[in-house]
Amino acid sequence: MADKPTNQSWGGRFSEGPDARVQRFTASVSFDCRLAPYDIRGSIAHATMLAKVGVLTDDERDRIVAGLQDIGGEIERGELVWRDDLEDVHMNIEARLTERIGEAGKKLHTGRSRNDQVATDLRLLLRAGIDELCAELARLRTGLIDLAEREADTVMPGFTHMQVAQPVTFGHHMLAWEAMLARDSARLADTRRRVNVLPLGSAALAGTTFPIDRPFVAEQLGFDDVAENSLDAVSDRDFAIEFLADAALVMTHLSRMAEELILWISPAFGFVELPDRYCTGSSIMPQKKNPDVPEIVRGKTGRVTGHLMALLTLMKGQPLAYNRDNQEDKEPLFDTLDTLRDCLGLYADMVPHIRVDADACRRAAARGFATATDLADYLVRKGVAFRDAHEIVGKAVRAAQDGGVDLADLSLGTLRGFSDMIGDDVYQVLTLDGSVAARDHIGGTAPAQVRAAAARARQRLAAND
Amino acid sequence: MADKPTNQSWGGRFSEGPDARVQRFTASVSFDCRLAPYDIRGSIAHATMLAKVGVLTDDERDRIVAGLQDIGGEIERGELVWRDDLEDVHMNIEARLTERIGEAGKKLHTGRSRNDQVATDLRLLLRAGIDELCAELARLRTGLIDLAEREADTVMPGFTHMQVAQPVTFGHHMLAWEAMLARDSARLADTRRRVNVLPLGSAALAGTTFPIDRPFVAEQLGFDDVAENSLDAVSDRDFAIEFLADAALVMTHLSRMAEELILWISPAFGFVELPDRYCTGSSIMPQKKNPDVPEIVRGKTGRVTGHLMALLTLMKGQPLAYNRDNQEDKEPLFDTLDTLRDCLGLYADMVPHIRVDADACRRAAARGFATATDLADYLVRKGVAFRDAHEIVGKAVRAAQDGGVDLADLSLGTLRGFSDMIGDDVYQVLTLDGSVAARDHIGGTAPAQVRAAAARARQRLAAND
Amino acid sequence: MADKPTNQSWGGRFSEGPDARVQRFTASVSFDCRLAPYDIRGSIAHATMLAKVGVLTDDERDRIVAGLQDIGGEIERGELVWRDDLEDVHMNIEARLTERIGEAGKKLHTGRSRNDQVATDLRLLLRAGIDELCAELARLRTGLIDLAEREADTVMPGFTHMQVAQPVTFGHHMLAWEAMLARDSARLADTRRRVNVLPLGSAALAGTTFPIDRPFVAEQLGFDDVAENSLDAVSDRDFAIEFLADAALVMTHLSRMAEELILWISPAFGFVELPDRYCTGSSIMPQKKNPDVPEIVRGKTGRVTGHLMALLTLMKGQPLAYNRDNQEDKEPLFDTLDTLRDCLGLYADMVPHIRVDADACRRAAARGFATATDLADYLVRKGVAFRDAHEIVGKAVRAAQDGGVDLADLSLGTLRGFSDMIGDDVYQVLTLDGSVAARDHIGGTAPAQVRAAAARARQRLAAND
Amino acid sequence: MADKPTNQSWGGRFSEGPDARVQRFTASVSFDCRLAPYDIRGSIAHATMLAKVGVLTDDERDRIVAGLQDIGGEIERGELVWRDDLEDVHMNIEARLTERIGEAGKKLHTGRSRNDQVATDLRLLLRAGIDELCAELARLRTGLIDLAEREADTVMPGFTHMQVAQPVTFGHHMLAWEAMLARDSARLADTRRRVNVLPLGSAALAGTTFPIDRPFVAEQLGFDDVAENSLDAVSDRDFAIEFLADAALVMTHLSRMAEELILWISPAFGFVELPDRYCTGSSIMPQKKNPDVPEIVRGKTGRVTGHLMALLTLMKGQPLAYNRDNQEDKEPLFDTLDTLRDCLGLYADMVPHIRVDADACRRAAARGFATATDLADYLVRKGVAFRDAHEIVGKAVRAAQDGGVDLADLSLGTLRGFSDMIGDDVYQVLTLDGSVAARDHIGGTAPAQVRAAAARARQRLAAND
Repeated sequence: MADKPTNQSWGGRFSEGPDARVQRFTASVSFDCRLAPYDIRGSIAHATMLAKVGVLTDDERDRIVAGLQDIGGEIERGELVWRDDLEDVHMNIEARLTERIGEAGKKLHTGRSRNDQVATDLRLLLRAGIDELCAELARLRTGLIDLAEREADTVMPGFTHMQVAQPVTFGHHMLAWEAMLARDSARLADTRRRVNVLPLGSAALAGTTFPIDRPFVAEQLGFDDVAENSLDAVSDRDFAIEFLADAALVMTHLSRMAEELILWISPAFGFVELPDRYCTGSSIMPQKKNPDVPEIVRGKTGRVTGHLMALLTLMKGQPLAYNRDNQEDKEPLFDTLDTLRDCLGLYADMVPHIRVDADACRRAAARGFATATDLADYLVRKGVAFRDAHEIVGKAVRAAQDGGVDLADLSLGTLRGFSDMIGDDVYQVLTLDGSVAARDHIGGTAPAQVRAAAARARQRLAAND
Repeated sequence: MADKPTNQSWGGRFSEGPDARVQRFTASVSFDCRLAPYDIRGSIAHATMLAKVGVLTDDERDRIVAGLQDIGGEIERGELVWRDDLEDVHMNIEARLTERIGEAGKKLHTGRSRNDQVATDLRLLLRAGIDELCAELARLRTGLIDLAEREADTVMPGFTHMQVAQPVTFGHHMLAWEAMLARDSARLADTRRRVNVLPLGSAALAGTTFPIDRPFVAEQLGFDDVAENSLDAVSDRDFAIEFLADAALVMTHLSRMAEELILWISPAFGFVELPDRYCTGSSIMPQKKNPDVPEIVRGKTGRVTGHLMALLTLMKGQPLAYNRDNQEDKEPLFDTLDTLRDCLGLYADMVPHIRVDADACRRAAARGFATATDLADYLVRKGVAFRDAHEIVGKAVRAAQDGGVDLADLSLGTLRGFSDMIGDDVYQVLTLDGSVAARDHIGGTAPAQVRAAAARARQRLAAND
Repeated sequence: MADKPTNQSWGGRFSEGPDARVQRFTASVSFDCRLAPYDIRGSIAHATMLAKVGVLTDDERDRIVAGLQDIGGEIERGELVWRDDLEDVHMNIEARLTERIGEAGKKLHTGRSRNDQVATDLRLLLRAGIDELCAELARLRTGLIDLAEREADTVMPGFTHMQVAQPVTFGHHMLAWEAMLARDSARLADTRRRVNVLPLGSAALAGTTFPIDRPFVAEQLGFDDVAENSLDAVSDRDFAIEFLADAALVMTHLSRMAEELILWISPAFGFVELPDRYCTGSSIMPQKKNPDVPEIVRGKTGRVTGHLMALLTLMKGQPLAYNRDNQEDKEPLFDTLDTLRDCLGLYADMVPHIRVDADACRRAAARGFATATDLADYLVRKGVAFRDAHEIVGKAVRAAQDGGVDLADLSLGTLRGFSDMIGDDVYQVLTLDGSVAARDHIGGTAPAQVRAAAARARQRLAAND
Repeated sequence: MADKPTNQSWGGRFSEGPDARVQRFTASVSFDCRLAPYDIRGSIAHATMLAKVGVLTDDERDRIVAGLQDIGGEIERGELVWRDDLEDVHMNIEARLTERIGEAGKKLHTGRSRNDQVATDLRLLLRAGIDELCAELARLRTGLIDLAEREADTVMPGFTHMQVAQPVTFGHHMLAWEAMLARDSARLADTRRRVNVLPLGSAALAGTTFPIDRPFVAEQLGFDDVAENSLDAVSDRDFAIEFLADAALVMTHLSRMAEELILWISPAFGFVELPDRYCTGSSIMPQKKNPDVPEIVRGKTGRVTGHLMALLTLMKGQPLAYNRDNQEDKEPLFDTLDTLRDCLGLYADMVPHIRVDADACRRAAARGFATATDLADYLVRKGVAFRDAHEIVGKAVRAAQDGGVDLADLSLGTLRGFSDMIGDDVYQVLTLDGSVAARDHIGGTAPAQVRAAAARARQRLAAND
C-alpha cells in the first residue's frame, strides 16, 4: 500500500494513499502534459482576474504570473519532470509553482476546479489545432486548384461504377477533390465557433462563491463567449465530438483521393506518377514502387472514425456533471489532430508533384464508348425523345461491341440503321474533345468551365483567409 | 432467367434482363418511394427549366407538370403500385408519367441523370426533415426553460462521479439540458446550409450538353446555391454524414437526460415522478412502473451512432463518381430522421409533466457534505490559502463522517480544532440555500442567475425562429 | 389520454393507460412478430414442462398446445391481426390464446416472464439463422473451390499495393477467398454453441417459485445447456453481439471480393465478365453495364458494421438486469440476418457464372516485372546473399524500365553486367509459368498445390456438414 | 530531398531516397518495436528451417541464431537504437544482425518477406497477450466466486428498469458478473485457435521458390497449423478483428459492472464500499471520494469499441493481397491488449476488497414491493390463473402505495378484499428471505443455489486451466 502522499490535491479526507497500480492507471499526466502551454495561459488569465476582483493581491498575481512563465520555459526546455503521483498536468504545474513561489501558489486554485480548468485547456488546444488544420487544408486546396488549371484540357475517362462513363478533364476531377475539402474547411470553421466558448468559472459544477469576472477572462484568452451553464460546461464534450466528426469526413475524403491515386498509379491505369521520394519499395520484390503515402492515409481513415466512435460511446448515458470517464477524451482528440496534420501536410506536399500522363488518360477515355451519351443527346436535339434515343444508342453500342469497334468506327450507313435521324455531323459529337467542350455550364467539365471554377475556388479560399 | 423487361431505363445494350433475385436485391423502390414528393417537385422544376431554355415546348412542359401533379395525388392516396422491376422511385414515376401523358413523358429525363436526381431529392427531403427536427427541439427546449423557471429555487444535490458534490437548483440542471440542445439546434442550422445546395444539372457525372439554367432551378426549389462541380455533386454524401453526426449528438444528449431521469425516478433517488401514461408495467411483477420512454430513447442512441458508422464505412475509399454502394445511404438517413422526430417529440410531450419532489431533492442534498467547498471558500475569505483550506476541510469531513454527522452538526469548538479562523458565522455558509445563493455569477446556480439564464435562453430560442 | 386498456399484461397498478404516442413508440410488435414461430415453440415446451411438474393439468396443457398450434397456423396464413396496444409478439399471442381457449390461456405465463421468454425466442431465431447462413456459406465456398479447380493453371498478376507483384494463378486467388469464408464458418459454429443455451426459467430476473424443470425444456427445444444465472440470462445479449461481429467479418470479406470483382470487370483490367443478368445499366449512358451486385454488397458492409456498433453502444454501461433499452436489439439482428442471407446467396448464385479472360490475365501479369523476385531467388541459388541479390535485381529493373522493356527482353550480356553469376538458364525463371510452378509448397501458388488445396478445402467443407 | 539511404531493404530500383517527412510518416518502428522478441523468435525458427532444407549452412545458421539472441539481449537492455530510416522492427533487427555477423545476415531474408514475417510476429504477440488476459480473467472470476460465496445469503434488491423488481442475493449478482466473464474466456479460447496458425512461408504473397518446410517452422513456434493460402495469409487480419470484438465485449461487461459499482457506492444506494486506495478525491471539494477506477474502466469501453471500428474500417474493401494500409493494424491491437490487461488486473485486485453493507442492501430491498410477484405466485398456487393473480396484486400494490405502506403491512382483511384466496400463510411469502429461498432451481437466486453455482463455476474455471 502506498504511503500517504503529501502533495496530492485532495489528501485530507483520505486514510490511505492510492494503490500504486491505481495511481498509474488513473494518472493522466503522461498524455495530458500536452495541455501544459494552454494550462499556463489559462492560469495566468485566471490569476489576473482574481487580482482584478480583489481575491489576490497584485503582488500575489505578479509572483504567480512570473512563476507560471518560468515553468512554461522549463517545460519547453524539457526540464520539468512530470510526476504520476501528482496525477495530471494541472497538479504538476501547481505543485511546481508552489515549490517555486511558496504560499501564493496555493491560492491560484481559488474559485476554480480541475473540471473547468481542463475543459478550458482542451478548448484552447483544439482551437489552435483547428487553425493549424485549416492552414494545411488551404495549402492542399491551393495545390489542387493549381493542378486543375494545369490540366484543365487533359481528357480522361470519368467513371461511374468503375466503368468508363463519359470523358471529363483531369482539372475537373481535381476540382471535385477541392470541393470536398472546401466543405471540410467550412465545417471546421463552424465547429471553431462552438469550441471558442469559455468554461472557466464553472468551478467543479455549480460555479463559485468568489466574485469572479468571466467576461474578462474570456477576453484575455480570446474566447468569443462564456459558457452559460456551469453543470453543462464541465460535462460537455460536444466540441470534441463535433471536431472528430469533421475529422472523420476529412479522412473519408482523403481516403477517396487515396483510392483513386492508388488506382491511377497502378499499371492497369497509369494515369499519374509520383516521385520516388513519395514511394517505398519491397524487401523481397526488387521491382516494386509502392504508393505508401496514400495507402497509409487510406488506412488511417479507420483510426479517426474509431476515435469518433470512442467518444460517442464514452458520452452515451453519462449522467451530469463531470465523471472521471471523461479523462478518456484526450488521447483520441490529440491523435486525431496529429493524424490530420500529418495526412493533410503530406498531401499538400505531394499534390504539386503529381505528374499526369495525358496520353494514357486519353487512351483510357477512348475505350468504353464514353461518348454514347453524346450520341443520345444528339438524337434528342434532332427531335427524338430522350428515352427512345437512349434505347437506340444502347443497340448501337451493342453492335459496336459485338464488332469489337468503337461507336465512331461505325459507318454512317450502319449508324443510320439504328436511326435515320443520324447525319454525317454525328462524328463530331463522338469525339472526346467535342464531348467535354459541350458540357459548358456551371459545374460542367468543359475546359472553360474548369478554368472559371478554379478562379472562383481561389477567390473563396482567399476570402476565408 | 428473367425475360427482357420492356420498361427498364437501360435495356438497349443488354442481351438478357436481370435475374429475379438480383432484381429484388438491387431494387430500392421499397424504401426510396419515400422520396416521391421531392422527386416530383424536382421534376417539375426541371421540366419548367427545360421549357424556359427551349428544350421542351410549353405544351410539353404543361403536360409533364400536370401529369406529375396527378401522380403526386395518386401516391398520396396510395393508388400507385410501386414496381420492383422499375428499380426505383424515379423510374416508377417516369414510367407512370409516360403511361399517362405519352411521348412527352419520355422527354423529361433530358439533361439529367438519376445520379443528380436522387442527390436533389435527398437534399430536399433532408432539408424538410431538419426543419421538422428543429421545431421539435424548440418545443422541447421551451419545456425545459419553463420547468427551469418553475424549479429555480428547488435545491437538489449536484453530482460529480455520482457522488454528492455541491447543492444546485433543479432549474439550473434543466438549463444544462437546454444548453446541450441549443448547441444541437445550432449544428443543425449549420448543416442545413450545406444541405441546401442544388446538385441537379450535374447529370451522370460530367454535366450535360443541353443549355440548362441551374440557378433558375435552384431558385424554384429554394436552394441557396448550385453545386460547383458535377463529379463531386453526384458522389458527395457529406450532407447526410454531417447530419448523422449531428443526430448522434442529439441522441447522446437525450441518452444523458434519460440516464438521469431513470435514476431520479428510481426509489433510491425519488427526485421526480412521471405520469403513468409515460410508463409501462411488467408482465410478471405487478408492482412495477417502468420508465420505458427514457429507456428506449437511451437504447436508440446506439441505433443512430450505428447509422453514422454505416455511412462513414460506406464512403470510405470510394472512388469518384457515383457507385451503386450509395444506394445504401437512404435507409440509415430515413431511420435517423424518424428516430429523432419520435424521441424529441416524446420528450417534448413528457417534460412539462415531470413532477419534482422538492423534499426528496433537498433531503438528498443534505447527505454527503455538499457544502464542504463552501467551508473551504469561507476559510479562503478569512485568509487561508485555498490548498490549505482544502486540507483543513478534508480533515473536518473525515471527523464528521467518523462521527456519523454532517459538517453543520459539528460544534464550533470542534470546527475550530481544525482551524481557529472559523467563527460562528460559519454555520450560515454550511446551509444549502446559502450555498446555492452564493454562486451568483453568469453560469452559476444561484436562483437569480437561473432565472436570468432562463430568460436569455428564451430570447435565443425566439431569435432562431 | 388513452382509455385504460383491459388487455394489457400489467394494468392493475396503473391509474391511466398509456398515451397513444407512447404506445406506438414503445410497442415492438411491428418487428418482433418475426419471433412468433419461436415464441410458439417456446410456449409449447414451457406448457409441457408445467404439466410435467404438476403446475398445469394435462388437460390445460393439451388445450394450450392445441391453441398455440392453431395460432401458429393463423400467423402463417397472415390471419392474425397484430395489435400495437398489446405491445409485443408475446402478449399478442397470449391474448389470442386466451380468446381461443379461455381460462387455461391465463395460466401459460406461470413461472416465466417476458424477459426470459424473449431471450429464448431470440436464441431460437438466431440459431436457425446461423444454420441458414452456414448453408449459404457452404454453397458459396463450393462455388469458389470449383472455380479454383477450373482455373488452377490460369496465370494472373498477384498484387500488393495494387502494383503487380508476382504471378499467381486465378485458382489460387479463389482459394484465398474461400479461406476467408472458411474462417467465417468456423466462427459462426463457435458462436452457435454460445447461442444454444436456454434462458427460460430465469423468469423476470431471479428465477421462479414454481418447481420448474429447466433441463427438460432445454431438451425439448434442442438447447445444449441451461443458463447458469438468472440475472445474467435475462440481461445478456452477448450472443447477438458476437454474431454481429462474425457478420461484420463476413461482410468485410464479401466487400474485399466485391472490390476485386469491380476492378476486374472494369475495362482497365478486364479479367472477368459477369452475365448481363447480374448487372444493370444506366438511365442516361446507354453503353453502361454496371456490376451492381458487388457494389451493393460492398455498400452493405457499413450497414452491418453499423449494427454491431449499435448493439455495443446499447449495452455499454447498462446495469443489470433487464432494461427496456434491450428492445432495440432486434432490428439490427434481424436486418443483419437478412443482409447476410441475401449477399451470400447472390454471391453463391453468381460465382459459378464468373467468366475468366485468361488472355487478359496473362497480359497483365506480363507487365510490371512480375518475375523480378524469381531472378533474385535465382541469384541466391547461385550463391549471392539475398540482400545483395535484391539490390542487383533492383538495378536491372531500373535499366529495363528506362529502356521500356521487360526483364526477359534484356540480353544475357546486359544481365551479366549486373552480376556475372547470371547464366543462360536465367530466362527460364523469368517466365510466368516457371514462376508460378516454382512456388510448390503448402500454401504456394503452383497449380499442383492449388489442386491439392482445393481437394483439402472440399474435404473440410464436407466434414463440417 | 533526402540522400539515397544505403541500408534500405529496397533501394536498388529507386532514383532518390524518401522525403524526410514521408520517412517519418511511413516508418512504423516507433510502435512495431514491440514485436521485437517475437520477430527474433520467428527469425530463429526460419533460419533453423533454412539450414534444415539446405538453403543455409549449419555455420550460417549458428551465427544467425547467436546474433539474433545477442540482439534480443541488447533490446531487453534498451541498448539498441531504433532508426526511423530503417522503417520497421524487421529491418532494424536485420541491419543490426548484418552489422554484427556480416554476410550471413544478408541471407536471413531468403524465402520470406516482411509481409509473412509481420503476420507471424503479430500472431505470436497476440497469442501471448491472450494467454495473459485469460489469466487475469481467471483471477477476477475467482475473486467474484469467492465474494459470491461470502455473500450468498445477503439479500439485496434485484432491479429491472432500475426499479426494485424482486429480492436477490448479493452472491447471485456476483455470479451474474462471473458468467459474463466466463463467456469472454471461452471466446478468447476460440479466437486463440484461429490466431495460432503460421503464415510464414507465404513470402510476399505467392509463396517462395525455396524448398521450405513450413510444418517444421510451425512446430518450433508452437503453432497448431500452417496457413493454407499464401495470398490470404499475408492479407488476413481477421485474427486481430476477432480479438478486438472479444475485447469489446470484455469491456462492455466491465462497463456494466462499473455502472453498478458506481451506483452502489453512491450515497443514494450505499450498498458497497471500496478502500480509499481505489478511489481519488477532488481538487476543490474536500469531502469527495470518487470511484475513479470503475469510472475510467467505463470510459475505456469506448476506446476498445473504437479500435474495433478502426480495424473493420481499415479492412473494408481492401483488395488482396498486402496493402500498406495494414500497418495501421498494430496500434489499436497493442492498445487493446494493454487496456484489457490493466482493467482486468485492477478489477481482480479490487474485487476481494469490496465491502458489502448488508443492512443497506436489505433496507433497499424492503422498499418497492419487491415481493409482489411472490404474492401473485401464492395466488396461483391457490388456484388463481396467473393473469388474474397479476391483476389482483397490481391493485393491492396500488392500495398499499396510496397508503404509504408495504404489502406486508396490509392487514389480512385488507388483503382478502382483493382476493378471498388469501390466507394468513401469506405473510411468510412476503418476507425477503422467504422470497429468495423459494427461487430454488438451477439459475435461481436461493442461497443454496448460489453456493452450488459457485462450486460449479469454480470447477469450470479449474477445468479451463
